[in-house]
Parts: sequence; C-alpha cells; structure tokens
Amino acid sequence: MDKLPAKTIERLNSYRRLLLRYEYMERPYVFSADLARSLNINPVHVRRDLMLLGFQGNNARGYNVKELNKAIALHFQKIAQTKACIIGFGNMGKAVFEQITESESPITIAAIFDSSPENIHKTFAYVSCYSIDKLTQVIPSSAITLAIITAFEEDITALLPLLTASGIAGIMNLTAVQPTLPKGMLMESFDITSAIISLAYKTNC
Amino acid sequence: MDKLPAKTIERLNSYRRLLLRYEYMERPYVFSADLARSLNINPVHVRRDLMLLGFQGNNARGYNVKELNKAIALHFQKIAQTKACIIGFGNMGKAVFEQITESESPITIAAIFDSSPENIHKTFAYVSCYSIDKLTQVIPSSAITLAIITAFEEDITALLPLLTASGIAGIMNLTAVQPTLPKGMLMESFDITSAIISLAYKTNC
Repeated sequence: MDKLPAKTIERLNSYRRLLLRYEYMERPYVFSADLARSLNINPVHVRRDLMLLGFQGNNARGYNVKELNKAIALHFQKIAQTKACIIGFGNMGKAVFEQITESESPITIAAIFDSSPENIHKTFAYVSCYSIDKLTQVIPSSAITLAIITAFEEDITALLPLLTASGIAGIMNLTAVQPTLPKGMLMESFDITSAIISLAYKTNC
Repeated sequence: MDKLPAKTIERLNSYRRLLLRYEYMERPYVFSADLARSLNINPVHVRRDLMLLGFQGNNARGYNVKELNKAIALHFQKIAQTKACIIGFGNMGKAVFEQITESESPITIAAIFDSSPENIHKTFAYVSCYSIDKLTQVIPSSAITLAIITAFEEDITALLPLLTASGIAGIMNLTAVQPTLPKGMLMESFDITSAIISLAYKTNC
C-alpha cells in the first residue's frame, strides 16, 4: 500500500474510534456523511480517505463497518510495534499517559522518565517509571523510538543528543520550548499557551 | 494596526517569552538569527513578523529587546482582557492551568468547572472551581469568552449550546471528540493520540 498523507492518517485514527463505537452498537453499515458529521469534517475528505484505503461506499447502505475497521487496523499494523516513552510525569505527563493507554492506541507507552522521587521506581498501569539518568539504558533496551516530552523546559536542548544516541527517531514536544533538532530527528510540537493566545486573537479581532 | 496572520500571533508569543529571558539577563539587543535559532524557525519569518509590528532590525546590533517587548505587549493588549475557563479539572485540566498561569500569558483563567466533589468549591491559585451546572451563571457574570475543554468526551456536544448561550466565542478542544459547532463559534482542537500516531507513521514509513 502506498504511503498515505499525514492528514489522512490522523483522520483514520478518528474513524477507527468512531467505527469501534459502531461495532459495539452492532450497527453494520455507516455512511461517509455520518462519519463526516461526527468529526465535523467534509464528507468529500472521508470518501477520499477511505478510497485511499481501497474502499468505495455503497450509495444505498454505506460502508461495511467491520471491513472498514479491519482495513484500518491492518494499515496501523505498520506502526503497531512502535513504542514510546513519556519524559516528565507531572500533570501533563499523566494526562497524556491516560489518554494514550485508554484510547486503544496502536502505540504502546513502554517507559516513563521523571525526576520526582515519588514517581521513580513505581509502575503506572504496568509501566515502569525511571529516573532521567536511565534514559540511555532503558530506551535502547526497550526498543523505544518515540519520546513525548512534557517537562524539562530548561533542559530539553541538553536532552536531545542523548535521545538521538539512544535511538529516538521522533519527538512529540508538549513544552513551550522549540529546541534545535539534531539531524534525522522529527519533532511535532503543541504549545497550549500559544494556541490559546491565537484563539483569543481570532475571536477578539 | 492591521490584523496580523494567526501564525505571526503564535510566534509573537514565542518571541515575547524569549525576549523576557533576554531582558532578565540584561541583554539589550538581539538578532533575528538568534530568535530564529532558539525557536527552530526561519530567520526570514522572524524579520517579516517583526516588520509587521513596525520593526526593522539594525544589521550591526540587531533589535532593541526592551522596545520589541513593549511593542508585543502593546499588541497583546487587544486580547489582555480575555478571560477563559477550564472545563474538566483532571490531569489535563491541571496541566493546562499550570502552563497558562505560569507563562505570564495575557489570557486569564477566570473559572474552573469540574464534576469531582474533591475540586468543586475549592480555589486553585485564587481561581474558583464550580460544578458543571453553574456554567450558565458563572460564564456570563465573569465575562468569560473562551472555554478550554479537557474532559467530558461523551457530553461535549450537549455542552456546546450552553456555552454559546453563556457567551463563549471560542473553544480549545483537548478531547478526542470533534463536535459539530454551533454557528459563530470558533474551535481549535488538539488530539494527542492522533498526533502521536501521525508521528509514529512519519518515523516508520
């Protein structure tokens, strides 16, 4: 199967979650218009995304929910072995951990790193929390390739070479700092304080 | 002053935070290249953003840090009266509250709403937490116009008409649900589970 656009991948994940609800409610078919309405997107996008997966809807009854679910799961198998770690286990780290572990995500959280003595050496939903100085041991031995950074605003730049050397290929940066990236490293960032200012500006001006 | 592009606004906030650090370190001038490197963006963007604010750098010594800071603060005055509430005060709500209150944001969190008895009627850094059924009273009486929704995955659609009626103009949606929006309502969404899947896909495929 060809590589799908990044936006399609994000939407596939949203479809998957909706479709699991449909399966649970034993509803065998779904229209692209229903998926589009639930997700507040254009039905044309839904139809194009599913066409990229090899599906054509049936005008009379829509898409087969089980088949669609299977196809998305099959596509996600490519990333189903992906392991991530969470660096920083304050409120944001805990929130992210909960959301990922509770969403039947294809990504597994395989380790947590924190600097607080009350978290280190404990396990959270069977995932161990290590001190930060164990990064370079635990990441390679657990074959972790993604890091979700939720803290360490000051030290994130110092952390990056260690992460690269340990085998991390992608970073989800939830701090307000935008560090210079080592070569070959991918990073996605979300900064809540900038996002809320941008929203305020849009509603006010 | 003309309306600035949304991306410029988000970057202005990043510049502001960096410049506050420069002021604190008593460094009077900064080059666009330094700002660009710290934020991992193109120096051309920095120069264009600051030109939109009415600033031209001086090739020999760069931009005046204090003047630049003042200009950004002045621009943000437009939104400095904006009040937001946080709906849902679990780990994600607490993380967002901390990030906004600790970032010297021009946006004020004026109320928190939650369904947990251990939070209701308490105050967090002088901000009161109310039960959800107080939404329609507290939001108009506190002149709150933004809502940051961090929970209530099931009920978010039921919540929207109440929020519109109470005077909310913009929503920051940090849940995995994409509800259909009432007319005139703006929404920005960030779904961590979809973002991490997209990152995994980019690094693996």
